[in-house]
Amino acid sequence: MTNLHPHAPLRVALVGLGTVGGGVIRLLQTNGNLIARRAGRTIQVAAISARDRNKDRGVDLSPYEWVDDMTTLAAREDIDVVVELIGGADGPALTLARQCLAAGKPFVTANKAMLAHHGLDLAALAEKTGIALKYEAAVAGGIPVIKGLREGAAANEISRVYGILNGTCNYILTTMEKEGRGFDDVLKEAQELGYAEADPGFDIDGVDAAHKLTILASLAFGTELDFGNVAVTGIRDVIAADIAEAAALGYRIRLVGVAENGPDGLFQRVHPMLVPTDHPLAHVDGSLNAVVAEGNFVGRLFFQGRGAGEGPTASAVVADLIDVARDEYGDAFAMPVAALSLQKPADAGRRIGRSYLRFKVQDRPGVLAEIAAATRDAGVSIESMIQRGANQQDGVLMAIVTHAGEERCICETLDRLAGSDSLLGTPMVMHILD
Amino acid sequence: MTNLHPHAPLRVALVGLGTVGGGVIRLLQTNGNLIARRAGRTIQVAAISARDRNKDRGVDLSPYEWVDDMTTLAAREDIDVVVELIGGADGPALTLARQCLAAGKPFVTANKAMLAHHGLDLAALAEKTGIALKYEAAVAGGIPVIKGLREGAAANEISRVYGILNGTCNYILTTMEKEGRGFDDVLKEAQELGYAEADPGFDIDGVDAAHKLTILASLAFGTELDFGNVAVTGIRDVIAADIAEAAALGYRIRLVGVAENGPDGLFQRVHPMLVPTDHPLAHVDGSLNAVVAEGNFVGRLFFQGRGAGEGPTASAVVADLIDVARDEYGDAFAMPVAALSLQKPADAGRRIGRSYLRFKVQDRPGVLAEIAAATRDAGVSIESMIQRGANQQDGVLMAIVTHAGEERCICETLDRLAGSDSLLGTPMVMHILD
Repeated sequence: MTNLHPHAPLRVALVGLGTVGGGVIRLLQTNGNLIARRAGRTIQVAAISARDRNKDRGVDLSPYEWVDDMTTLAAREDIDVVVELIGGADGPALTLARQCLAAGKPFVTANKAMLAHHGLDLAALAEKTGIALKYEAAVAGGIPVIKGLREGAAANEISRVYGILNGTCNYILTTMEKEGRGFDDVLKEAQELGYAEADPGFDIDGVDAAHKLTILASLAFGTELDFGNVAVTGIRDVIAADIAEAAALGYRIRLVGVAENGPDGLFQRVHPMLVPTDHPLAHVDGSLNAVVAEGNFVGRLFFQGRGAGEGPTASAVVADLIDVARDEYGDAFAMPVAALSLQKPADAGRRIGRSYLRFKVQDRPGVLAEIAAATRDAGVSIESMIQRGANQQDGVLMAIVTHAGEERCICETLDRLAGSDSLLGTPMVMHILD
Repeated sequence: MTNLHPHAPLRVALVGLGTVGGGVIRLLQTNGNLIARRAGRTIQVAAISARDRNKDRGVDLSPYEWVDDMTTLAAREDIDVVVELIGGADGPALTLARQCLAAGKPFVTANKAMLAHHGLDLAALAEKTGIALKYEAAVAGGIPVIKGLREGAAANEISRVYGILNGTCNYILTTMEKEGRGFDDVLKEAQELGYAEADPGFDIDGVDAAHKLTILASLAFGTELDFGNVAVTGIRDVIAADIAEAAALGYRIRLVGVAENGPDGLFQRVHPMLVPTDHPLAHVDGSLNAVVAEGNFVGRLFFQGRGAGEGPTASAVVADLIDVARDEYGDAFAMPVAALSLQKPADAGRRIGRSYLRFKVQDRPGVLAEIAAATRDAGVSIESMIQRGANQQDGVLMAIVTHAGEERCICETLDRLAGSDSLLGTPMVMHILD
């Protein structure tokens, strides 16, 4: 426990004053009285720190003490909790986290990358000093899904947790879907509108979603964080025709992070999936996020809300501060680090499911027979096939939906076709959410 | 604080052994090891009590001490927490709650009726002795929405909270919708299947949903519980034709509990509403529940899951027990009782919105003119109207959707038509969710 005196203000040092940091200040200014009623005490920004003091952030920072050297914060007795909004898996954020937690200073962060890579070490530090390490804002923005898993669903053995964890990807995919446009075109617009970064790789290649999935999996299953074993595919290779074919078959395409735990091990994957239109995830549009958890007593829980942006992320950061102010917190990953189990990664090839395969092929006799033979020899059973020619500039598209089967058979199909001069470009494989 | 020693088992007395009570026992038996890892200690059923000792409940009760007189539990030092699953606003449940809370015995309940009527008194007792009063299972079954509002959205000023809070009503309405059947027919089937009580009034007249809404409103707004000012209309008067007309207009009918807080006061209503098909509530089918909260920073949060039944409700009860075991709890209604504000009820007549009116009328000239005149004179502006004759046994149906306007104008329309012999039966009014 820390030196929090009931009813004394909770004095916060805020490190990092980007969009979210500004949002936290605005939120505390706007809702301060209500928050004090709920938290039982005032939550007060006592000190701020960021790289550039002179940048205009559109919020009045004059009431707050500016701290040039954030490494002094951990030792300050007039600071009750440090909020880290710098980002980055390593570097200054990690240094600050380690300093604070080792010194027994409660720590709130939105830093999913740091947690995915160093969460266990940080949780162990927090455990040793008995203080809070909170990170509701790290996953799914304003949606209280960390709390939902850590506490709300805590009575359940959870077999699967999955969701739409990256708003940029979801915005791009749903805009492609609604407007029939191509990936590059929509990405460019998203960058111009500020919905995607100038360097978008972190989002569109699925890395951000993989960080979040790593955290969710640990909370859901009571397993150690294992970012290294998340299989990641982003959305760069989804083309307009995939979305159209999927729609014709009764599916929408979403970037889905899926984690499953069972006797075969821990399975973690981020990839674009075909989601049946009657599944709630198919209706998660634009920059919304959503998370589904399936528990053995509660059944399917579904959480949806705004997954990014100033307001929602600030809402989650301040929710953590309220928990700290109320003295309602415990182990960061729902149990002591030593109680988390080390689960072996599952063999994806043994997973049973249906898949979508799309080939771009030469428009000439024999190609269909070649692909059909490869699927047959690999043991893949075909449920439906669409071939469309004519309007493709180069070659024709062939889309296949398989019956349920082992995923390794899909890989074998592709291996059998590798190097064939019938194929134009790399085939696209997406699995179907059941 | 109570006499909870870290790492000692949490000893639970379970009072009431119906469906949910049996579920709690089964859950603790099934997931006991995992729960102990998460809670940091074993959660142990130490004593049980119910009206009838000899009833077969399909679960082995022999390991547990049977207590004939539950009024002895509050004083027992070998019980750490009492779980009340008897139900009923008053009577034995309330007596037990008062005894336990006054004696400083942590108390977990699923009893929405008791909380809606006596929640403030009970919270004040818990506050005085500094112990937990927890009730996640009282609203929306397994969905952690009490936690979502009390903690997850705590940084927000919430303007509106609403949702589908009664699974029986939702099952009936969605079955009517999917199968085109009438209310009485579906209700009878639901009773035969055990989805509706033999005496279904509590559910289908909206009282159960009103209890839950009262609790949500207090948590969302920081206002005192005010069950007496919930306007309640159930689903008995929804006919198959309403559902068909609503569908033709792009809506589905759901029993929605809505609470709003603002300068005009606190508005609370449970009634069947027309929900646009692109709203998430329109996709909440069968016995699912869902809750939406709209906060000034987080935006719209949406929670969905199973709202009743043994497994989901037990999941919520045990989540509360885990919070108690972890020592992570505080004020029952998110702030001290004295900090809750007493908000005046809002004048529903001043609310602006669109409405659906359905009349059953005589099939004769002049009726349309009479209704049109009444709406005009009451200041109601009509957006669309459908009249269907022919296949109605007696009279014809006329369905009107209004433009946005004050609700008092709708009341005035009905007043103007009251007593008219053109009308067959009472007109049906449903408001439209915006």
